[in-house]
Amino acid sequence: MNVEIIVIGDELLIGQVTDTNSGWIARELNHVGWEVTEITTVRDREREITDALDSSFARVDVVLMTGGLGPTKDDITKQTLCRYFGGKLVFDESVYANVEAIFARRHLSMNASTHDQAYVPDVCTVIQNPVGTAPVMWFEREGKVLVSMPGVPSEMKTVMQETVINRLRQHFRDHSAILHRTCLVKDFTESRLSESLTDFEKQLPACIKLAYLPTPGVIRLRLTARGDDEAQLQPLVDGEFAKLKALLGEHLFCDVDATLAGALGRILARRGETLATAESCTGGNIAHEITRVAGSSVYFKGSVVAYSNEVKEHVLHVSSQTLEQCGAVSRETVLQMTAGVQRLLSTHCAIATSGIAGPGGGSAEKPVGTVWIAVRYGERDRAECFHFGGDREQVIARATQSALLMLVQLLTE
Amino acid sequence: MNVEIIVIGDELLIGQVTDTNSGWIARELNHVGWEVTEITTVRDREREITDALDSSFARVDVVLMTGGLGPTKDDITKQTLCRYFGGKLVFDESVYANVEAIFARRHLSMNASTHDQAYVPDVCTVIQNPVGTAPVMWFEREGKVLVSMPGVPSEMKTVMQETVINRLRQHFRDHSAILHRTCLVKDFTESRLSESLTDFEKQLPACIKLAYLPTPGVIRLRLTARGDDEAQLQPLVDGEFAKLKALLGEHLFCDVDATLAGALGRILARRGETLATAESCTGGNIAHEITRVAGSSVYFKGSVVAYSNEVKEHVLHVSSQTLEQCGAVSRETVLQMTAGVQRLLSTHCAIATSGIAGPGGGSAEKPVGTVWIAVRYGERDRAECFHFGGDREQVIARATQSALLMLVQLLTE
Repeated sequence: MNVEIIVIGDELLIGQVTDTNSGWIARELNHVGWEVTEITTVRDREREITDALDSSFARVDVVLMTGGLGPTKDDITKQTLCRYFGGKLVFDESVYANVEAIFARRHLSMNASTHDQAYVPDVCTVIQNPVGTAPVMWFEREGKVLVSMPGVPSEMKTVMQETVINRLRQHFRDHSAILHRTCLVKDFTESRLSESLTDFEKQLPACIKLAYLPTPGVIRLRLTARGDDEAQLQPLVDGEFAKLKALLGEHLFCDVDATLAGALGRILARRGETLATAESCTGGNIAHEITRVAGSSVYFKGSVVAYSNEVKEHVLHVSSQTLEQCGAVSRETVLQMTAGVQRLLSTHCAIATSGIAGPGGGSAEKPVGTVWIAVRYGERDRAECFHFGGDREQVIARATQSALLMLVQLLTE
Repeated sequence: MNVEIIVIGDELLIGQVTDTNSGWIARELNHVGWEVTEITTVRDREREITDALDSSFARVDVVLMTGGLGPTKDDITKQTLCRYFGGKLVFDESVYANVEAIFARRHLSMNASTHDQAYVPDVCTVIQNPVGTAPVMWFEREGKVLVSMPGVPSEMKTVMQETVINRLRQHFRDHSAILHRTCLVKDFTESRLSESLTDFEKQLPACIKLAYLPTPGVIRLRLTARGDDEAQLQPLVDGEFAKLKALLGEHLFCDVDATLAGALGRILARRGETLATAESCTGGNIAHEITRVAGSSVYFKGSVVAYSNEVKEHVLHVSSQTLEQCGAVSRETVLQMTAGVQRLLSTHCAIATSGIAGPGGGSAEKPVGTVWIAVRYGERDRAECFHFGGDREQVIARATQSALLMLVQLLTE
């Protein structure tokens, strides 16, 4: 079943907010074998919303919409859909009771705008939103379905998981399956990898596709199988995945879809080993990446974010002489940081970073983007200097990924 | 000038990657007074790409495209655009030299796929990509322009900043201006705020729009002015913004567009005060949010991510008795964590979190989503227990925002 998503909101089109709803919806739908084929992001304008809806309905039978349902003037999705489907807004007691209950729970008092939230088009089926005041609306026309949901991620996710997905499946009685097998590959450029997999790609059955998702240092390979019968599809995709694993050998370091931090975590968990980080320029982002992974408390003990030299010296015991003579951004400092945090937190492994994320702080000798990274495993350690391009956010992100990859390398060689 | 963006890539439509390019492009274009009016995300399919292009060109004169330019089989953007504009692929010496230079710099060797990167449509102007192997292609047709760029964010950003934006401005000689003034407001629901600003909204000149961007606990208000003459527009929007500030009084706690961490940082920087965090369930995310802000080293000294009780006890000096009797997720623990990190890192302020981010680890008494947060300023402290809904990522994100807001409250009351 093909689905399109229409995302509504001026804030998305001026770049003030990033749409993470669509990706989440796509992942959830994939689990039940449905596919998002197009995403359209439009402003809070009636004409642009209805044009997008016309286009989507011309291509697919299910359109999911998020955003534009707040109580303020700039949000016009409800009124727009009401006119589009030829209805009128009517006061809905059940929605009002829901809004009241939510306000009571939050110890807030109702006003005119919240009262208006209880008006809904008489041509839709209301799905109660248990975690917010904006109602979820289900419209049908000529066998096609539109579901309008709030843009607040937690509200959208709750109604999708609790109601919308099941109701859509029931409505369309569709059983087509889509299966993914994903792995992470290191020490390859995308083009080199593609070259070595030419024959493998050629022999793939028509229902299975291979996709490359390159990130710096790591390529994610994804086999996707589509068909009617999941039971038949599963051994097929598993068989191809086994061939892929054999072909890639040690280059394949994770055989599930995981972040790099997740892949590292799987290695550590398997060995029963622990990790700590000592972060300067990455400012806690490595720890954050590691702890985004559920279950990371098994192997991750913690981190010292040493954003000032004081902390490097007094908490991590980097010698003051090193900081003075070599500087905070140096091989010596990051090596001492890994040793310091490994000792302080009693772990098997440690990662440390120190660099200049920018935009300020650069010099001719150490320009913005210069980052020293060290990793340590038992008594073995290694340090490397990187020169990352891009802005502050990119430098932090790349240093984070490079640091995680360096430890994967040290652990798997 | 209105611009549309077409984002290409299967990985976006299965939710494996989040598109952050569009938001970045929108922000950059806004700075020069251009506006992104629609974003379309499509799969790596010729028909879907050309349909999206037809639709966009029917609405606007400039289309920016990202993605689908890798050297692998699944990337078909270049071939598709070549056919769409009626050209043929030709070998381009300058592109080949660029690819060679990049491979040399990265100490990689060329192969057939990388060689193919140097074939470009003979109907486009090539813009060299100084940081990647995929060429940037500029197409023109009947006064309209399409620029195809790589999906790798750092490559796209580099070519946009170094070449594409300037070339587009020169090409279209457009001088329309768009100005934003943004502020952050606390202690209001969106509907209550909208009610108190009804009269203000009514008196706004036609060229100025007010938008609400609610996040839990904080509402971002944005005044947007559009017109031909920036010099005329600036005092107009400044005047309205001054009225807004007067109306909101102490509820307005930041008068620039900043993240909550950025707003907190401005308060600290103004006072010359410093901050440290002690994080359990947020796992470094508060430190990361704080250090995403350029210049944060002025007020942020560091963090102890205490993911295990061992670290809470031995590094932060939470008493073992407290951990045993009250548990790690308790008022007593987070208060001791703030005191401990404040002492360890010698700061004016401290933030601490301890909670159950899930999906595991919950109990009847302390279900998943239970998070204790404490803030401390000098000798004053405060702790609160939250019950966040949502998944692990949402719990971490909400705990982070709530913790930052609690410190803003403590500092500004």
